[in-house]
Amino acid sequence: MTETPIFPRVGIIGIGLIGSSLARAMQLGRLAGEITIFDASAEARAAAQELDLGQVHDRLGDAIADADLVIVAVPIGAYAALGPQLARGLKPGAILSDVGSVKQAVVRDLGPHVPEGVHFIPGHPIAGTEHSGPRAGFAELFKGRWAILTPVPGTDSAATERLKALWERMGSMVEIMEPSHHDQVLAITSHLPHLIAYTIVDTATQLETSTQSEVIKFSASGFRDFTRIAASDPTMWRDIFLNNREAVLEILGRFTEDLTALQRAIRWGEGDKLFETFTRTREVRRGIIDAKQA
Amino acid sequence: MTETPIFPRVGIIGIGLIGSSLARAMQLGRLAGEITIFDASAEARAAAQELDLGQVHDRLGDAIADADLVIVAVPIGAYAALGPQLARGLKPGAILSDVGSVKQAVVRDLGPHVPEGVHFIPGHPIAGTEHSGPRAGFAELFKGRWAILTPVPGTDSAATERLKALWERMGSMVEIMEPSHHDQVLAITSHLPHLIAYTIVDTATQLETSTQSEVIKFSASGFRDFTRIAASDPTMWRDIFLNNREAVLEILGRFTEDLTALQRAIRWGEGDKLFETFTRTREVRRGIIDAKQA
Repeated sequence: MTETPIFPRVGIIGIGLIGSSLARAMQLGRLAGEITIFDASAEARAAAQELDLGQVHDRLGDAIADADLVIVAVPIGAYAALGPQLARGLKPGAILSDVGSVKQAVVRDLGPHVPEGVHFIPGHPIAGTEHSGPRAGFAELFKGRWAILTPVPGTDSAATERLKALWERMGSMVEIMEPSHHDQVLAITSHLPHLIAYTIVDTATQLETSTQSEVIKFSASGFRDFTRIAASDPTMWRDIFLNNREAVLEILGRFTEDLTALQRAIRWGEGDKLFETFTRTREVRRGIIDAKQA
Repeated sequence: MTETPIFPRVGIIGIGLIGSSLARAMQLGRLAGEITIFDASAEARAAAQELDLGQVHDRLGDAIADADLVIVAVPIGAYAALGPQLARGLKPGAILSDVGSVKQAVVRDLGPHVPEGVHFIPGHPIAGTEHSGPRAGFAELFKGRWAILTPVPGTDSAATERLKALWERMGSMVEIMEPSHHDQVLAITSHLPHLIAYTIVDTATQLETSTQSEVIKFSASGFRDFTRIAASDPTMWRDIFLNNREAVLEILGRFTEDLTALQRAIRWGEGDKLFETFTRTREVRRGIIDAKQA
């Protein structure tokens, strides 16, 4: 069966883990007639060429010219500079989307530059690994995972449906959400866990050298799970924290209160309080297993 | 080739995840001539019988009588009550060991009860899963993992060597350590990670119900990894925190300082500080991968 591609021409800006996985997933599913690629890094461009991920261009304008869909997949901090370039190159009727982990900042940084007639539908696939770069991508990354779309008010629903269809054909379930609500939910499910993982690994790096080597040796006892998360891309995560500040600080305040309460229970030997907490948290794991997200 | 068992008779006290894995590993490797089992829970005893893990006894005394090695595998909080019973039943020349995650408290609770002529060698396999009970065990749990032994001063080195050989035949690498040093290292590699995972999952359970279901839905973005750890056995973990209080509070203090520093960097938009931290932590992951503990 020959299926028609959903978009004749898709431009991908940024060919790291997510961008390259998009290219592979679209190639595998024949979802795009043509894929055009731009990345600010010459090294990434060369890798994309070598991996045959699409037509690689040295200038952003050439990668988005005539594209029916442009997906921005660069760190959030680079969006503001992209805005004017996108404004010049996008054709009327095109969809502009992205994959950034924060959505209000994207609306703030790209929104004002979106030309009349272009459909601006920010997005965020809840998928990733601790690896970075074009060689880390794979076509199945989005399979069975959620993708969140946060169209701005007044967006053409046909355009949203078309973008939704693309994600679904890449194996994702799609949820439509307000940008501010997205940022709150992700602050607890993703940003706080990463901040805490980075912190605990950093605490360990500041121990004396002999203890540090033992920490690595005996990491299978829990620490290891945090190091995987704390190996995620530093630029990407710096930009996430700087651009979702309010929501992260809010949930971090709650976390610190809860941690202080447990600290006090340990100090004063309040075993019942610890036991109750540890029993409650077990239920959440069951919920995740039931939701097939384990 | 028929190998001689390392111990003619091994008594296992507590047949949960670790106890049942020990029984299976020893059966698989023919490391014990006979395995005798006691558990305070009738349900666990019935499961052990059904799983054919060894000779199951209804009284602790019968399970340790004539045993050449007795391994205690119950939550740390139950050790104090076991001391006098072990004292009455252990035969001269036997080795008394355990698998508890804290070692100073074990020396404190069991040490005074160890009869003359019995070799007391506390131990701790750095292995486990988030599942509990006799049905959760499997023979390969200790394979490629570290086991720490903390013999008390003056322990017969031949006895230590024999216990070491048992762990090695179950696939573990063995490290000898001071109990107090063990407790410090595990506070950072295991106890603090668990405390933090329990806390963040608990913070999530206190959000409004609608957000909670979204947290589960979108948990693949980081949160999920914490829920696995936070599903560990509540009794075991209550006892660990109550019995390694000083070391846990010490490392928790350092962690909180580091978290506060990152919180401040986020509030004041100090991107360089965040980037430096996130780059440093990436190195630790490489160390763990190099040490084959990933």
